[in-house]
Amino acid sequence: MLNVGIVGATGYAGEELIGILLKHPQVRITDLSAKIDQAKPIAEIFPKYNNRIDLICNKPELGKIIARSDLVFLALPHTVAMGIVPSLLKAGKRVIDLSADYRLKDIKIYEKFYQSKHKDKANLGKAVYGLPELYRQKIKSAQLIANPGCYPTCAVLALAPLVAFDLVDTGSIIIDAKSGVTGAGRKLNEELLFSEVNEDFKAYKVNVHQHMPEINQELSKLAGKKVNLIFIPHLLPLKRGMLETIYIKRNQKTKSKTEKISSLYKKFYQQEPFVRIKENGLFPQVKDVAGTNFCDIGVKEFDENIIIITAIDNLLKGASGQAVQNMNIMCKFGETTALL
Amino acid sequence: MLNVGIVGATGYAGEELIGILLKHPQVRITDLSAKIDQAKPIAEIFPKYNNRIDLICNKPELGKIIARSDLVFLALPHTVAMGIVPSLLKAGKRVIDLSADYRLKDIKIYEKFYQSKHKDKANLGKAVYGLPELYRQKIKSAQLIANPGCYPTCAVLALAPLVAFDLVDTGSIIIDAKSGVTGAGRKLNEELLFSEVNEDFKAYKVNVHQHMPEINQELSKLAGKKVNLIFIPHLLPLKRGMLETIYIKRNQKTKSKTEKISSLYKKFYQQEPFVRIKENGLFPQVKDVAGTNFCDIGVKEFDENIIIITAIDNLLKGASGQAVQNMNIMCKFGETTALL
Amino acid sequence: MLNVGIVGATGYAGEELIGILLKHPQVRITDLSAKIDQAKPIAEIFPKYNNRIDLICNKPELGKIIARSDLVFLALPHTVAMGIVPSLLKAGKRVIDLSADYRLKDIKIYEKFYQSKHKDKANLGKAVYGLPELYRQKIKSAQLIANPGCYPTCAVLALAPLVAFDLVDTGSIIIDAKSGVTGAGRKLNEELLFSEVNEDFKAYKVNVHQHMPEINQELSKLAGKKVNLIFIPHLLPLKRGMLETIYIKRNQKTKSKTEKISSLYKKFYQQEPFVRIKENGLFPQVKDVAGTNFCDIGVKEFDENIIIITAIDNLLKGASGQAVQNMNIMCKFGETTALL
Amino acid sequence: MLNVGIVGATGYAGEELIGILLKHPQVRITDLSAKIDQAKPIAEIFPKYNNRIDLICNKPELGKIIARSDLVFLALPHTVAMGIVPSLLKAGKRVIDLSADYRLKDIKIYEKFYQSKHKDKANLGKAVYGLPELYRQKIKSAQLIANPGCYPTCAVLALAPLVAFDLVDTGSIIIDAKSGVTGAGRKLNEELLFSEVNEDFKAYKVNVHQHMPEINQELSKLAGKKVNLIFIPHLLPLKRGMLETIYIKRNQKTKSKTEKISSLYKKFYQQEPFVRIKENGLFPQVKDVAGTNFCDIGVKEFDENIIIITAIDNLLKGASGQAVQNMNIMCKFGETTALL
Repeated sequence: MLNVGIVGATGYAGEELIGILLKHPQVRITDLSAKIDQAKPIAEIFPKYNNRIDLICNKPELGKIIARSDLVFLALPHTVAMGIVPSLLKAGKRVIDLSADYRLKDIKIYEKFYQSKHKDKANLGKAVYGLPELYRQKIKSAQLIANPGCYPTCAVLALAPLVAFDLVDTGSIIIDAKSGVTGAGRKLNEELLFSEVNEDFKAYKVNVHQHMPEINQELSKLAGKKVNLIFIPHLLPLKRGMLETIYIKRNQKTKSKTEKISSLYKKFYQQEPFVRIKENGLFPQVKDVAGTNFCDIGVKEFDENIIIITAIDNLLKGASGQAVQNMNIMCKFGETTALL
Repeated sequence: MLNVGIVGATGYAGEELIGILLKHPQVRITDLSAKIDQAKPIAEIFPKYNNRIDLICNKPELGKIIARSDLVFLALPHTVAMGIVPSLLKAGKRVIDLSADYRLKDIKIYEKFYQSKHKDKANLGKAVYGLPELYRQKIKSAQLIANPGCYPTCAVLALAPLVAFDLVDTGSIIIDAKSGVTGAGRKLNEELLFSEVNEDFKAYKVNVHQHMPEINQELSKLAGKKVNLIFIPHLLPLKRGMLETIYIKRNQKTKSKTEKISSLYKKFYQQEPFVRIKENGLFPQVKDVAGTNFCDIGVKEFDENIIIITAIDNLLKGASGQAVQNMNIMCKFGETTALL
Repeated sequence: MLNVGIVGATGYAGEELIGILLKHPQVRITDLSAKIDQAKPIAEIFPKYNNRIDLICNKPELGKIIARSDLVFLALPHTVAMGIVPSLLKAGKRVIDLSADYRLKDIKIYEKFYQSKHKDKANLGKAVYGLPELYRQKIKSAQLIANPGCYPTCAVLALAPLVAFDLVDTGSIIIDAKSGVTGAGRKLNEELLFSEVNEDFKAYKVNVHQHMPEINQELSKLAGKKVNLIFIPHLLPLKRGMLETIYIKRNQKTKSKTEKISSLYKKFYQQEPFVRIKENGLFPQVKDVAGTNFCDIGVKEFDENIIIITAIDNLLKGASGQAVQNMNIMCKFGETTALL
Repeated sequence: MLNVGIVGATGYAGEELIGILLKHPQVRITDLSAKIDQAKPIAEIFPKYNNRIDLICNKPELGKIIARSDLVFLALPHTVAMGIVPSLLKAGKRVIDLSADYRLKDIKIYEKFYQSKHKDKANLGKAVYGLPELYRQKIKSAQLIANPGCYPTCAVLALAPLVAFDLVDTGSIIIDAKSGVTGAGRKLNEELLFSEVNEDFKAYKVNVHQHMPEINQELSKLAGKKVNLIFIPHLLPLKRGMLETIYIKRNQKTKSKTEKISSLYKKFYQQEPFVRIKENGLFPQVKDVAGTNFCDIGVKEFDENIIIITAIDNLLKGASGQAVQNMNIMCKFGETTALL
């Protein structure tokens, strides 16, 4: 049995992690902590876990976390995780960080988009970007995982086959992204109140969202050249789920027909347990993936344009589900354990 | 033209007041204020009022409010309104207070339910409870209106005919109330986040809600004896609207049949522009009244039990609509002006 | 491995059954059928089950269902199930019927509330009412389970302790019930359209709902005398989940204090894996149970009144979850298998 | 007083028309009809109009409609309106058709996208496309108005300034459109059920929606050359409101900076009572326009790309509000009467 700690257990990602791990036969949750006023049973904070877990959720104490856990999930706000990662690594713990702190390899970009100094350059190089479909081998032996953001997971999986095989004009990518409200976290922000969100819809952080450089970084690696896309996120009046509609132009090289492109996707992802390609001409919708760890992708050509629509559950494949998938890979558990 | 000020212009009630008053041909909004970081155009705070109103929303300054307004609406949190009312009255202004500060005639009950000392006993006696269907005559000449709470408006209108004519056992009243989320105000409270409220439903303040004594006070006046009812409010995953399902037992006196009870209601409210009684056997639903100043009531008997279902828009007949109705009565405008 | 068939696989209950059974290690889904235009893969009907199940959903053919299944779930509309049950029983199959056809022991009441002749009186006596908390022993050896309705599951579990021990006035019970929209099934009914339901709330079938006699039947058995309660269901603008607020008066016998009543509940249900009693003074809300097979109950006294609030997921403990719990009991599987 | 009839009074557009016209001081609703089982008071169909209008809603009878109305609104399904328009025109009535029947000037395109023969070519030429911002002069003297579709209203107003002044590459236009559910009408379609739509989001009719040729037609007229854009509509889990995010590339001619483009928009629409341009860098959201007849537009440049976000209420500026605006223009009423 693997002893697992969760730091930041009271946010949406932490709440999901508990639910998934309770179903995992090879894992025991041994430590829960969060920035709370006073320690209390986690089942009091989340009554849905009543009768299912007895642990107390404490304020984070590094010593206890280290003493109790073999592997630690950090479900903390950006900039907080990197304050604790060095100690955990030094103590020999494996760490899966759900924040953005170790995702961006270029510190200048991190500091621009997260408006904060990076405090742990030493470990940045060690961190493996935890997208199993692209980095499974590295994940196996990683000590520190930078678990991808929700928008980037959705976008990179959607674009990887086309970009990797150089079939599209990488200067033409437009991502019109739509996310459910849990994507913003359990934050006290007037714009996230039910009375503000229900029956509303809006774009936000238009082409300046902090996930944009993360997508650019991953696509640039795949393309072997700098990619700069347009990225406009929108806030959907729903709790969980995310859908991206992606517009892209074919490049000269591709003469392929629709069938071939969706076939290409199927081949690219044929070994993947959590990526599903829609049959030609069909597109996924949020409810196909909500509550699951799947990423569903539909792709179709219109003359020189390719339209890709892709959907994930932002809290699962976009956060906690993917984190557990990474843990499964790191620990040689079945990759889908507790995720189906 | 009546010059009108709104203090607390940025809450849900203030926002609604602006919208209603912009349609009112005999009124000019001349002052807007609220507890904000810095003065800014109200149309910047509420872009929906762009091109419709040019006023700046300021921090409240008593001198300016008095200089600019003939009548002042106070859409403030409870306990704040009574800090400003005495000065406004002294300056000869008419005041419609949407808070609870002048609703409860028994100061001990106010202090118990609002957990705060009452600071203006002097004016408490002057305040007229602004439920036009019961107190229209007094409202005409009032200088200070205590605008009723949303739950009480809904409950008192639903029960007044039966209680006034002594047809029911006043010891048997149970109110199962359900309100939309705007009823809680534009407050930063984790429980009001979209991600917490959507797809959820719950009871809250079970039998201890601060509107319960207000309902008891008004029904006791009608009954000529002390009424103590059971009142359980619930939070609906919708923005605006309120519905109460009321259970009550007939007393010995009433041998009346269903038809007669709904007829009684029709007679009781026949002159009322904003109360509509459903035909026998039918009940109102939230969408019948959302966006309107109506209170719809359906009543039906089942043996010794009477079921009443009543619905209002909590922001209109339950707050700002009723406030304007009171203003119309006080100022001898047409009572329905700007409200239909 | 138990071979299981689902008739009515395309409704909400059928959809849930598939999802639960896919997680069940001792069960294999071997037949899926529904009233559809033409046979097609179930994963085409429910893309969320893509890559998880390969079966074709056919039009129901009794011969195939019998040939392929050891146990059959019927997730059919009322009055349709009883047309197929006799043949299934004759073929020696075990049957769990999620419809109302075998729930009401009094045929006259069935025919009144479902407005249809009962066609299988012969098997009505054999059917065991599938509420494990009350009838576990009988369920073990049953061949035909009448799986309870959602409102009755919620109401009977909430009231059983008080009624069984004769602590309340059974003539005083009022149930103010609120259900999510899936409770109405996947039906083409204008009143169930998103544009009609969102931002609305209403009572329906006021005191004439077909689940009322089912609740009365079960409580009467427990009480040893005829119970007739008031039951008013309401439609919540949410997909899944149900909450009942129950008002009841103590009888002369009970001098017990609050603590004692909630203790009584804890004792009554202490062996039950799916009933959770809230600590004194707290009440459950829909999100505590949504997506789970739990029934959460909170109870509190106010003088002579007892308030009970209880919540379930209408599609799980109120339908498919409970059906699988019944299957687990019948087949000697772990009772919570696939349900936690 | 203008006598007005509404054919198709029971759909969402009809329901809105009634509400608007009840506030119009120069109009009297004199005839209401719809495809219903039997005539009944409109206030029975829409209880929210109780006490506000006494008319019976009948099955449509041409004779009565003609006898009672000076002007007729047709809020009918596509292909039905053109069966009745010729008779109304012949009788000298003015007609505002909210369907698509007279919008597309190219009959082949109509027949392809609406999959139905066009039955009234004779009057097609007479019909004026009722977008006041572009065709106000023609509307003044029109007898037949083809009231624009919701998506086209939103798209054409958003793009008109850029296209008219030839500042963009008209081959590059991508419209990512999102609409509330009322846009689909009050139709019995499983995909429109609350339990299917809530917590879901999806694209539909990807690049084949019938509003696409309408947008192309209008933009082609403005551009003086054929425009073919990409148009992907999505279904939002909200009732009313629509937002389009538009991606477009500048052409060689434009060297203009951001400020200039939004200034250009302000100039283009400066006389328009219902178009509001956001200040530079800001974008509109659905709640800014829901319940209003406004079209709000925000525009911003990112290098060679221009992003436009625009929002309307699909039932008002996208249907019934615009229809009344057209009536006001045709009848020389104040253009904003009953619309503010």
